[in-house]
Amino acid sequence: MTRISERGKSIFASPFRKYLPYADAAKARGIDVIHLNIGQPDFLMPDGILDSFKWSASSFVPYGIAEGENELRATWAEYYQKFNIEVTAENVMVTTGASEALQMALLAIADPGDEAIVPEPFYANYNGFCQIAGVNIVPLPTSIDDGFPIPPSVDFEAAITERTRCILISNPNNPTGKIFPQEQLRQLVRLAVKHDLFLMVDEAYSEFVYQTYDFYSALTFADADQHVIVIDSVSKRFNACGLRVGALVSRNAALLDSITNLSRLRLSPPMLAQRMAIQLLKSPGSYYAGVLEEFTHRRALMLDRLKKIDGLDFHAPEGAFYIFARLPIEDSEDFSRWLLTDFSHQGQTVMIAPGTGFYASPGQGLNEVRIAYVLEEKRLSAAMDCLEQALATYPKTVSAALKA
Amino acid sequence: MTRISERGKSIFASPFRKYLPYADAAKARGIDVIHLNIGQPDFLMPDGILDSFKWSASSFVPYGIAEGENELRATWAEYYQKFNIEVTAENVMVTTGASEALQMALLAIADPGDEAIVPEPFYANYNGFCQIAGVNIVPLPTSIDDGFPIPPSVDFEAAITERTRCILISNPNNPTGKIFPQEQLRQLVRLAVKHDLFLMVDEAYSEFVYQTYDFYSALTFADADQHVIVIDSVSKRFNACGLRVGALVSRNAALLDSITNLSRLRLSPPMLAQRMAIQLLKSPGSYYAGVLEEFTHRRALMLDRLKKIDGLDFHAPEGAFYIFARLPIEDSEDFSRWLLTDFSHQGQTVMIAPGTGFYASPGQGLNEVRIAYVLEEKRLSAAMDCLEQALATYPKTVSAALKA
Repeated sequence: MTRISERGKSIFASPFRKYLPYADAAKARGIDVIHLNIGQPDFLMPDGILDSFKWSASSFVPYGIAEGENELRATWAEYYQKFNIEVTAENVMVTTGASEALQMALLAIADPGDEAIVPEPFYANYNGFCQIAGVNIVPLPTSIDDGFPIPPSVDFEAAITERTRCILISNPNNPTGKIFPQEQLRQLVRLAVKHDLFLMVDEAYSEFVYQTYDFYSALTFADADQHVIVIDSVSKRFNACGLRVGALVSRNAALLDSITNLSRLRLSPPMLAQRMAIQLLKSPGSYYAGVLEEFTHRRALMLDRLKKIDGLDFHAPEGAFYIFARLPIEDSEDFSRWLLTDFSHQGQTVMIAPGTGFYASPGQGLNEVRIAYVLEEKRLSAAMDCLEQALATYPKTVSAALKA
Repeated sequence: MTRISERGKSIFASPFRKYLPYADAAKARGIDVIHLNIGQPDFLMPDGILDSFKWSASSFVPYGIAEGENELRATWAEYYQKFNIEVTAENVMVTTGASEALQMALLAIADPGDEAIVPEPFYANYNGFCQIAGVNIVPLPTSIDDGFPIPPSVDFEAAITERTRCILISNPNNPTGKIFPQEQLRQLVRLAVKHDLFLMVDEAYSEFVYQTYDFYSALTFADADQHVIVIDSVSKRFNACGLRVGALVSRNAALLDSITNLSRLRLSPPMLAQRMAIQLLKSPGSYYAGVLEEFTHRRALMLDRLKKIDGLDFHAPEGAFYIFARLPIEDSEDFSRWLLTDFSHQGQTVMIAPGTGFYASPGQGLNEVRIAYVLEEKRLSAAMDCLEQALATYPKTVSAALKA
């Protein structure tokens, strides 16, 4: 067999999907696999969007503008007013999902060997995007013992070297559910300006903010015009994950020029999807409110069920729809696989994402998992039944007594 | 302004699009710009595809399978039987356009500093994809003076070094229109096996083959199972460029595993587009025949018009829908710009792609341009009127007398 490259062999294996073959095998055995491994919700798109969708722009589907269709860019800029973000259509570069926006941004702002400072745990696929761009992640460790606190800006500053090109965060955070308070965000913005770095903020979950927490976009700090990059997506807020429409938002002209050249290499974002995204971004406020209410219920159910499981540590998420939990086990990779290969409860099992992929530091996250509470309450409840039973029967569970 | 990276500053500027701002300015002045700069045809999609298109899979648009939807992979594998290609659905990885397939393949088979042997001129964006993957293009020069002949396999072999990881060709060729005869393709396959390289063939134009020429897919050589990678796309054959649905086809398991991991980083190809692609690939033979007939007429018109222009050299394309011509000018960049900034004929002008971007060798293609004959005959005729007039009035034309 012809050899592939060292890079090709070592491409980061996404923890959301790496055990899918085991899930498929479980399904083939007749087991109902409840998918809490990936942020793929089950709520409905806004009324009428799918029914009324038509491609009526021409009698074929041509390439679009590399930077995204003008109407979509303008609609997105307008949507941002709800977060007090003042941007023009030209500041919004449409990408094929937030994934492409992240990949292009890293290629444009960093050279191979450069560094990105990222609090960990972080969205696992950052590992892969940084690998492709040749960027080294400098992790700022945070622990579940303290509730995954947002590191103080002095910690960020201490991690800066001459190779640092950006600070990369997600807000609300995937997987910890933490939200950056305005003051901490402001400090990061100041740090970026002071050290001439980019502050790249993945704001895909901005509509998912619970209770009394407040979301502030990094784009609201006007003094950091040249330093802030926001990554966004229609995936999560409209349950439009499969459209693959994201955005890179910046006011830095040199960056936008570079992203334009990168965008032209792949010609245009998907056109059918962009047309639908225009409609989605015009959704009424009541739609977002309804989605958030549903997720508030799901969150409450999860918190209630998880606190009843012995030896399981977790924190209530402030935003997004994930819980990053520590389980009374030694190896979350083994446990996540075992749930699919050896376990079932009343014909069901649950798929979750093992924790190690959410870290850059070796050996971290070994007894942690990410649980996405993205399904209707009945399914979540069944999944929690499975998790409870699984922890009671898994042969390698660390007993609460031993742990203490 | 925060600095971007050296890489970010030097991203390859696609010759198909770099002068779009001048085209927009010309349009703003009321000039009708005829776009022969990009392979974006105007023919119709198969009957009923757009009218009947519905997303009926669920009441939202979820992430799909990273490798592509099973039905699409199976349909594509079946479509290939018309080219005597025997592949399974598992051999077909669906990508976000052929662009993504090319990018992923280079990432998977080459490490930074490795080499790809590419006959030039070649599809310009290979320059960008190789740049991102850190792959050095080793060009095999061919000249319009000899009709851009396919280099003999001894030339390919002579260019092999210990860093060579692949031979990259497009067949039918964009921009030269050449088709690899079966025997020359077989020799490249043997070379790939002998030197343990990948032979990567971009077959996006396989349906566009004129007169008595024959197209052979690299996948028909069973003895090179582990070495052949085919890049494909629905864009050109169905006028579905804006869908962004392509494919990477291979029988090499290690490569497919690596592409799977790369694919999972970006979660899934666009889902609306995949659904439409399934329908497109089931189009009746009469559809392809109709498209080819139309392009045969367009090709004839172009050959007739071009041969009447003094001092213009070109060769009749065997496949695809491009003509790579040498003009009696010194600088095709300047001429392509001038067509948009300073020229019009009866309220119209023509946009073409300057030739330098189709080369890796510095200084090549300076007096060459790519013309895409993708529009209806009336538009092509008007475009040729413009080109003829432009060459007669362009101040930096090299006269036929001077040239001789």
